[in-house]
Amino acid sequence: MTSGEDSNFVSRVLNFWNSLQHPYTPVSANSSRTPRTPRTPRTPRTPYGTQGSPRTPRSQSFNNRYDVALEEIKRYEDFTTIDWVQDAIHERSRMNVLRSAAIENRSSWNTWLRLSYEAGQAWIVVSIVGAIIGLNAALIDIITEWLSDIKSGYCKKSWWLNQKFCCWEIEGEDGSCELWHDWSQYYIINWFFYVVFATLFAAVCAFMIRTFAPYAAGSGISEIKCILAGFVMKGFLGSRTLLLKSICLPLAIASGLNVGKEGPSVHTAACVGNVVSRLFGKFKRNKAKMREILSASCAAGVAVAFGSPIGGVLFSFEEMSSNFPMKTLWRSFFCALVATVVLQGMNPFRTGKLVMFQVTYDREWHFFEIIFFIILGIFGGLYGALVIKYNIKMQSFRKKYLKDYGVAEVTVLAFITALIGYFNIFMKMDMTETLGILFQECESKIHDFENLCKTSQMFRMACLLLIAAILRTGFVIISYGTKVPAGIFIPSMAVGATFGRFLGICVKALIDSYPTFPLFATCKPDVTCVTPGMYAFLGAAAALGGVMHLTVCVVVIMFELTGALTYILPTMITLMVTKTVGDLFGKGGIADQLIKLNGFPFLDKEEYSFGVPVATVMRKDLTVMTASGLKLDEVDQILSETNFQGFPVVQNKKNMILLGYIGRIELKYAIDKAKRVCGTSNGAHCFFNPEHSNFSDSDNNGGSSSNFIDFGPFIDQTPITVHPKLPLETVMDLFKKMGPRVILIEDAGKLVGLTTVKDVLKYIAKKEAKGGENGVDIELNNNNFDNSNNLRRHIIGENDV
Amino acid sequence: MTSGEDSNFVSRVLNFWNSLQHPYTPVSANSSRTPRTPRTPRTPRTPYGTQGSPRTPRSQSFNNRYDVALEEIKRYEDFTTIDWVQDAIHERSRMNVLRSAAIENRSSWNTWLRLSYEAGQAWIVVSIVGAIIGLNAALIDIITEWLSDIKSGYCKKSWWLNQKFCCWEIEGEDGSCELWHDWSQYYIINWFFYVVFATLFAAVCAFMIRTFAPYAAGSGISEIKCILAGFVMKGFLGSRTLLLKSICLPLAIASGLNVGKEGPSVHTAACVGNVVSRLFGKFKRNKAKMREILSASCAAGVAVAFGSPIGGVLFSFEEMSSNFPMKTLWRSFFCALVATVVLQGMNPFRTGKLVMFQVTYDREWHFFEIIFFIILGIFGGLYGALVIKYNIKMQSFRKKYLKDYGVAEVTVLAFITALIGYFNIFMKMDMTETLGILFQECESKIHDFENLCKTSQMFRMACLLLIAAILRTGFVIISYGTKVPAGIFIPSMAVGATFGRFLGICVKALIDSYPTFPLFATCKPDVTCVTPGMYAFLGAAAALGGVMHLTVCVVVIMFELTGALTYILPTMITLMVTKTVGDLFGKGGIADQLIKLNGFPFLDKEEYSFGVPVATVMRKDLTVMTASGLKLDEVDQILSETNFQGFPVVQNKKNMILLGYIGRIELKYAIDKAKRVCGTSNGAHCFFNPEHSNFSDSDNNGGSSSNFIDFGPFIDQTPITVHPKLPLETVMDLFKKMGPRVILIEDAGKLVGLTTVKDVLKYIAKKEAKGGENGVDIELNNNNFDNSNNLRRHIIGENDV
Repeated sequence: MTSGEDSNFVSRVLNFWNSLQHPYTPVSANSSRTPRTPRTPRTPRTPYGTQGSPRTPRSQSFNNRYDVALEEIKRYEDFTTIDWVQDAIHERSRMNVLRSAAIENRSSWNTWLRLSYEAGQAWIVVSIVGAIIGLNAALIDIITEWLSDIKSGYCKKSWWLNQKFCCWEIEGEDGSCELWHDWSQYYIINWFFYVVFATLFAAVCAFMIRTFAPYAAGSGISEIKCILAGFVMKGFLGSRTLLLKSICLPLAIASGLNVGKEGPSVHTAACVGNVVSRLFGKFKRNKAKMREILSASCAAGVAVAFGSPIGGVLFSFEEMSSNFPMKTLWRSFFCALVATVVLQGMNPFRTGKLVMFQVTYDREWHFFEIIFFIILGIFGGLYGALVIKYNIKMQSFRKKYLKDYGVAEVTVLAFITALIGYFNIFMKMDMTETLGILFQECESKIHDFENLCKTSQMFRMACLLLIAAILRTGFVIISYGTKVPAGIFIPSMAVGATFGRFLGICVKALIDSYPTFPLFATCKPDVTCVTPGMYAFLGAAAALGGVMHLTVCVVVIMFELTGALTYILPTMITLMVTKTVGDLFGKGGIADQLIKLNGFPFLDKEEYSFGVPVATVMRKDLTVMTASGLKLDEVDQILSETNFQGFPVVQNKKNMILLGYIGRIELKYAIDKAKRVCGTSNGAHCFFNPEHSNFSDSDNNGGSSSNFIDFGPFIDQTPITVHPKLPLETVMDLFKKMGPRVILIEDAGKLVGLTTVKDVLKYIAKKEAKGGENGVDIELNNNNFDNSNNLRRHIIGENDV
Repeated sequence: MTSGEDSNFVSRVLNFWNSLQHPYTPVSANSSRTPRTPRTPRTPRTPYGTQGSPRTPRSQSFNNRYDVALEEIKRYEDFTTIDWVQDAIHERSRMNVLRSAAIENRSSWNTWLRLSYEAGQAWIVVSIVGAIIGLNAALIDIITEWLSDIKSGYCKKSWWLNQKFCCWEIEGEDGSCELWHDWSQYYIINWFFYVVFATLFAAVCAFMIRTFAPYAAGSGISEIKCILAGFVMKGFLGSRTLLLKSICLPLAIASGLNVGKEGPSVHTAACVGNVVSRLFGKFKRNKAKMREILSASCAAGVAVAFGSPIGGVLFSFEEMSSNFPMKTLWRSFFCALVATVVLQGMNPFRTGKLVMFQVTYDREWHFFEIIFFIILGIFGGLYGALVIKYNIKMQSFRKKYLKDYGVAEVTVLAFITALIGYFNIFMKMDMTETLGILFQECESKIHDFENLCKTSQMFRMACLLLIAAILRTGFVIISYGTKVPAGIFIPSMAVGATFGRFLGICVKALIDSYPTFPLFATCKPDVTCVTPGMYAFLGAAAALGGVMHLTVCVVVIMFELTGALTYILPTMITLMVTKTVGDLFGKGGIADQLIKLNGFPFLDKEEYSFGVPVATVMRKDLTVMTASGLKLDEVDQILSETNFQGFPVVQNKKNMILLGYIGRIELKYAIDKAKRVCGTSNGAHCFFNPEHSNFSDSDNNGGSSSNFIDFGPFIDQTPITVHPKLPLETVMDLFKKMGPRVILIEDAGKLVGLTTVKDVLKYIAKKEAKGGENGVDIELNNNNFDNSNNLRRHIIGENDV
């Protein structure tokens, strides 16, 4: 083919597509399309392009040409994974068209403006997203506090104020306040009100969730992890989920259930990211690009939940994102910054401070305390292992038996929690408040809460704390995963802080009793030697680290929460021990375990070592398209009989020479068009040859006619291929790092198989079930791989990500 | 081939290798070899292995067999890049052998012990590395302080004490101290001593570096970045570099040159990591694994330089490492922790605190100050752009004209710096001290340094500060890159802090003069409204961010340096502005620019968009090995005439069917062995066919005889291959994320080309030179791609990484 023929060919393709697009002008309801810039004239082609002369490869220029029409309909189907490689190629070719247009018409303001807009779009989106996340968080905070306080009383002056604002600047010396009115003078009636309100809140919340947005239940962290890795779950990040989760979160927290606001806060933030960014063309079309915004949103979600912008960025990096390039780091940083500034501007707590639990530890730690840091670390690891193990058991029990009794379950649970919790001061209070009190030094200016610091009360306090820690652990295990918005961060920290303070009091008592013991030699006489508040702080860090299996981000979150930078080394020591102990009981935090339980197609960050080639896991019975010989009705039949997302294209079934890969959506699209425009008959010949297209010897009507269709332009000629002997681990690395949807296995030009993430996961599950100690759990997972459609049940009307 | 034949075949291969290894038992001098565990019996093979039965692919089992002998000699050559994919495959197959041995002999304590040792080895190495880094840092700190003080006087009581320890707890009210004796009472003579000492220190330092370890000059950050990305630079991280850099760093800093200790601290830390880890078999053999330890060491290097463990981890992530999986994150965390604990245990500053510049900002910031934060951000961006631009110019000037005058250059520079700096108090002092003073609030308990806070002195101070900022910027540009250990962190922070404090004083003066101006409405009357110390703090962050193009890690380092968590939002705002401004002047911080200048094969983290297929950059004139038909002397000739690191293997030159890839080292090794053992003649036939080996019909002597050699077992059958039309950007992604040394281009089974990182970089340089604004710089870089051998000149005796 000479270059002259080629440019002729290109113009024909253009004609063909124009003719196709004419009768069918799809405009989706909520997308405002900007006008396309004029195309650059084509340069002549040589087989692979020549050194030094930058040009667009054929497959790309085709993409440019058909993406206008196809991108409108190209949506990833639900419960599939996106193809990062393809999405990246599409986006780059789009930018190239824009840029080369800009270079040619340097004077064109329009192009220049559009190019700057394209470049800045991400930052605009991130700013808007950050601002909304900040606003939303502030609203949630205010409502939560009011709902929490209403359980114990009301404000006489104006009922819509919470206790703090009601008593603003008129609080007495002893913390009493005239305007705030308890429901009754009798302990028992107050108890009654407390229980009734708590149960009511929980019931309303669970009912609304079940009725309007089932996806708003739970924490959402596991699902978002999968979505960020490329999984498609339509409606999970939709506007309805956002609305319901924002409304129900305050109810769930105020109900006194042992649930936190952090997971849900991340989920709502991701919803905001999704809802806002799909208003912008760039992100609507490109799911891989949208993931970058979602990563940034997650960072902002944690940032506003804890007032911890850097901690949020690190959380997004360490826990959420499979793919975290520098660009995403800076966007997350910016998004978290905007969200936090807005939150501080709103100032929901009226403290004017970002730091939630301001502490002023001014006592240095002693080297002998490392023993106790290690004990706290071990506690954190054990707590994490315990919660993960039994919560997973509880969740699979719930899946089996309680699926249809979500509301009842929540209501009963809230009732019991309130019933029991009321009698232990450390459980009755809001968890956030508890944390604040437990972190305080005894020497701080804040008045001594319930004589927590009095030496005479030590024993009573220690008992109360220990009981609270044990009971709360139980409640956390049962509550996490109920059908209300439920995070596990704050409850875990509350358990840890309670236990930590208990240990701190014990250590203090020990030193008071045996001041001459050699271990305590560095303590100066007559001066308090240890800070129980610090032990609470470390305990909280340990429990959080234990349950999530995180390190760096927990350290930073704890500092941003408290401002206590003096204790950076103790915190790190504790968390290192926690991590080590936790890893003994199994890899991966609770989010990873839930992913396994739900059977999402997610390759975790662990390193595996199997010693098998990819050929072991590949599928060998392939449904392929051949370059020629297929009739349209045969293709139609394949499409209706299988549910594969795409098909390899080979020369013929005998030699199996690989020509490329064609997606189901592209295939359907081309058939639809041909049928509509050319009235192509069912017996038409189908050509799947990207190189020698039949266009050139066809009539005016472009590539297709009533008796044949050419699928050439739709074939991806450069799918990722590997040799069958390539180790499986390297293929997993390819999936994790490059993110293709499918990898074709090719031996000397011949297609011998293909593999997807699910094939790999099935193999891992089988292998683990065979050799593993946790055979039962894995067996369960393995069942789930093919049953993930169960979740489809929950899908409601919404139609995106 | 049936499976029976095959197992026969395997045993023959074993025989072959045993026979080869017998006469030649290579034992390298410093490696203590542990005994090999017994091999597992082979299972019969089917073509690609069968679904569900995990087995080792052929190429792997071969590796296992020959790695004993080959791994001893297999070193990457200098100035090449390592192959991450191959290294990972080797390591996994080694672990598989160990593990399967362990599963079969469950009772064998020996195997179990070895397995646990293998698993824990990394943690052991990281602990030792961390401890040594901490110790080394403490020693360097102590010597630096003494040398710094000796310039102005000596301790009467004992000459080896620095000013602080000399005056320990006997300091007068006004900061005077009887025991510390200035060199003279006359200002001019003191000046003379100061200049003489400074010049002397610099000269000695530069001389030692030039004579003993040229690689110890400069900061080392750019080179370590490349090494972490897989580049091999022998001797750069050797023990001699470690020793010399540790000795000379205090001299360089004490000489008053505008150089910091952070880059060198990272470099010495990486040296420790390298020197220690190569004592352990796992890391000695596997350069990719060693990179993980190096990443952790870098984190520890920054951690001890700034007393900032988390900042160090983030620095390693954000700046240093191309590849930062979770495992490396935890190791970095642990390494930084150990290093910091040891440093604090040594307590070199006798403050008992990790925080270097403890500040106690207790004033909230006002929203109107955001204007000034933005000004500081812009300043940081401009400062960074200026320093990067002119420092790069200076460095290429130095390369051209001052190459042979390194010592003289440093001496003159130190002389001038001391001469001028003595008259400006903010330049005379040690930079670290300056930072501490500038960060202080005026209300802090520390006595007012030189009346910095007095309203009457405002104008004088502002002038001094501005002059210091301008002069120091000039010195930074000239000094960074001289032939002494030289970091750019602290000098940049010093410039930033000086400018920031200047701005702070101006703002304060402004508010004092116009207290009723609407902008300042939130200021309460008669109360100081702004904190100039905070402006210094933000200025330091901005300058550091500007020159390095970092965000998150700078925020964390600044907090860990000062403990000032209240100002997290101002810091983030400032750094975001800095980043934006900096990016306008060009992507990448100074380290990236230096990498470009030096022409290292390093793909930076920027995203490119070229719109060309990989075929554009690939090499088409390939030197290949054919499956048969080559004679030994022909192969020898190819080896001597080319310097490629490996050769594709094809069936024959006509059909070019790709069979695999063989490395130069493997090729040489096989030839050497065959010649030694079988006395193979020069005319012997060479077979490069991995599938149908000639072993089976040869005599007892294994695969080779006097008249033929079989290279089959050495061929990598699974090199990474891509289609010629794959977009170049995707290929770059493959290089960045998977890290192969070479990517073969294959079209329907036929080899059509190959490409390496250097090919891609050459293309980028050409493209940038054509279209770019910075044409001159790029032209320079482009020249350097082929001249990187210049550096070889510096290589000294050492023989590793």
